[in-house]
Amino acid sequence: MKTHNFYAGPSILPEFTKERTAEAVMNFAGTGLSVMEVSHRSKEFVAVMDEARDLVKELLEVPADYEVLFLQGGASTQFYMVPFNLMKTKAAYLNTGTWASKAIKEAKLYGEVIEIASSKDKNFNYIPRGYEVPADVDYFHITTNNTIFGTEILEDLDVPARIVADMSSDIFSRPIDIKKYDVIYAGAQKNLAPSGVTLVIIKKDILGKVDRPIPTMIDYRTHIDKESMFNTPPTVPVFAALMTLRWLKENGGIKEMEKKNIAKAKLLYDELDRNKMFVPNIPNPEDRSRMNVTFVMASGYEEFEKEFLEIAAAHDIVGIKGHRSVGGFRASIYNAMPIESVGVLVEAMKEFEAKH
Amino acid sequence: MKTHNFYAGPSILPEFTKERTAEAVMNFAGTGLSVMEVSHRSKEFVAVMDEARDLVKELLEVPADYEVLFLQGGASTQFYMVPFNLMKTKAAYLNTGTWASKAIKEAKLYGEVIEIASSKDKNFNYIPRGYEVPADVDYFHITTNNTIFGTEILEDLDVPARIVADMSSDIFSRPIDIKKYDVIYAGAQKNLAPSGVTLVIIKKDILGKVDRPIPTMIDYRTHIDKESMFNTPPTVPVFAALMTLRWLKENGGIKEMEKKNIAKAKLLYDELDRNKMFVPNIPNPEDRSRMNVTFVMASGYEEFEKEFLEIAAAHDIVGIKGHRSVGGFRASIYNAMPIESVGVLVEAMKEFEAKH
Repeated sequence: MKTHNFYAGPSILPEFTKERTAEAVMNFAGTGLSVMEVSHRSKEFVAVMDEARDLVKELLEVPADYEVLFLQGGASTQFYMVPFNLMKTKAAYLNTGTWASKAIKEAKLYGEVIEIASSKDKNFNYIPRGYEVPADVDYFHITTNNTIFGTEILEDLDVPARIVADMSSDIFSRPIDIKKYDVIYAGAQKNLAPSGVTLVIIKKDILGKVDRPIPTMIDYRTHIDKESMFNTPPTVPVFAALMTLRWLKENGGIKEMEKKNIAKAKLLYDELDRNKMFVPNIPNPEDRSRMNVTFVMASGYEEFEKEFLEIAAAHDIVGIKGHRSVGGFRASIYNAMPIESVGVLVEAMKEFEAKH
Repeated sequence: MKTHNFYAGPSILPEFTKERTAEAVMNFAGTGLSVMEVSHRSKEFVAVMDEARDLVKELLEVPADYEVLFLQGGASTQFYMVPFNLMKTKAAYLNTGTWASKAIKEAKLYGEVIEIASSKDKNFNYIPRGYEVPADVDYFHITTNNTIFGTEILEDLDVPARIVADMSSDIFSRPIDIKKYDVIYAGAQKNLAPSGVTLVIIKKDILGKVDRPIPTMIDYRTHIDKESMFNTPPTVPVFAALMTLRWLKENGGIKEMEKKNIAKAKLLYDELDRNKMFVPNIPNPEDRSRMNVTFVMASGYEEFEKEFLEIAAAHDIVGIKGHRSVGGFRASIYNAMPIESVGVLVEAMKEFEAKH
């Protein structure tokens, strides 16, 4: 049996990552010990951390004045760590969903938050456009992909302020121009690793400008100085991240991933636009996420939601129930998702339609 | 080849934990998916979190007015999270080593820190006694085991203040009277799990007494309300923790662990007291850690340190080089370390002595 894993996160990882991690849990780098029980200061683990950092730099073409960090605590920790380190007086936030709203809530503890635009009026089913970002804010915060609602900012923005981007659910899914961002952070449990590690890419010159005292662990400079080894890093998630990074490189890198992601998303959205039983949540094709495809039953067919879940389950599809704040369905089709599995979902949709 | 793993942390875990985790990385709870790629909201993972919490309560006999949490960020995060949540005006700290000193440093950002006693005068080679803790401090912070220097507070203290204890390296190694503590925290990577998860046991009535605004992720009440699922928990470390907790229960629980730990420590300290080549770092037997046994070359034999490391390596012993701030050797003999491995180290010591 092949299970088709459409979970939103933690979510599908490459077989390569799973197999190598299972091996290392029993015998890591020929040590005879588990990757779970080897000192993070051992030469074997230091090599893992170094290669993971280097591969992020290589795959994303990170310029030399940026640092790559592997931290703990998820994006939720970055929500307060960003303003703690960067907010002098005010920052601008784009409110495109649940996670952006949570980031705004934490930032308000540290200064003035200007909500520059919001799509809350339509339950976050579009990406606001045409707003202006003041040049005098300390930074402009965006959430590039909205896992719950299914929108995505698919281009690198040009604004007259430093950009901080939560890319938790679309990092590595398309090439990005790192120079346009000052901070990128991403909880790893979508396109990189199991939960428990957070990737941060940060431009060094943005730091050291605030006056408030910063606890050592919250200070990005601590982790830059100690190369993500100030305290014990989450060794298994970092090891798994390295495996995924190797897999990315061996499979053509980020540009190749983007091609595949475009093809997968097209296959699914085309079916949603065609199939009489479903309606995609996001009307504007330009705003539709390539990672999280959300949809509901078409008008008049609402009562058949459960039936479709049963048909999907019969095709060994898991994880397509929509988030409780949207309802309906969500198919998450991250990097590791093969187009064949998307095809199985589309087949299930056609089968469902044929019954009605 | 059997490797004898004396690393200080991340450190030896039971074979049971390693084997079950490797299995679950390929196929978790019969889902056909990896424990790395299953939603933390899936019924299978919620069951893991629930059982882990319940087993901690059962094994440590945690009273009903306490909560058990699984967080991220290690003890280093607790160093600021504790004062952030608990310090109104002043707190007392016992300075018994590197980690206690780091906890003191972070607490100073939030109020007055009274260093109630310190063993820094003798490079932390003893546990201070005979001090008095003022009754009007918000809490009294101790580090029960000092991983680097090799001392341990082996009894539950009676003081007229709420006790906060960093038990990162001796949790589950002996029965403790939870009622004597208001907060216990422990980075998991010694006696519980791989790095990346932090166990917190907290008395609920200690919270809600400070006025400062607390970021959501730093507020213990967030994690109590959401049962450690406010954000995505580190699923693999939590799964591995559950396996170790099951292993603890199946192997007689904490009292049985204590018996074995006493026997292992006695075997090693007796040899150190007898063997002419070595001197244990901690003179007072009552202060000697049962978890981290530190020792140096005896006077006149300093030049043979490297030779002993080679003999140890020939016995497939890893991880006994001492921390750079102490030098010499450190043998960490946590719960999962079989007495047979301690015996191999003792044999290596005897062999070394016989050569001189």
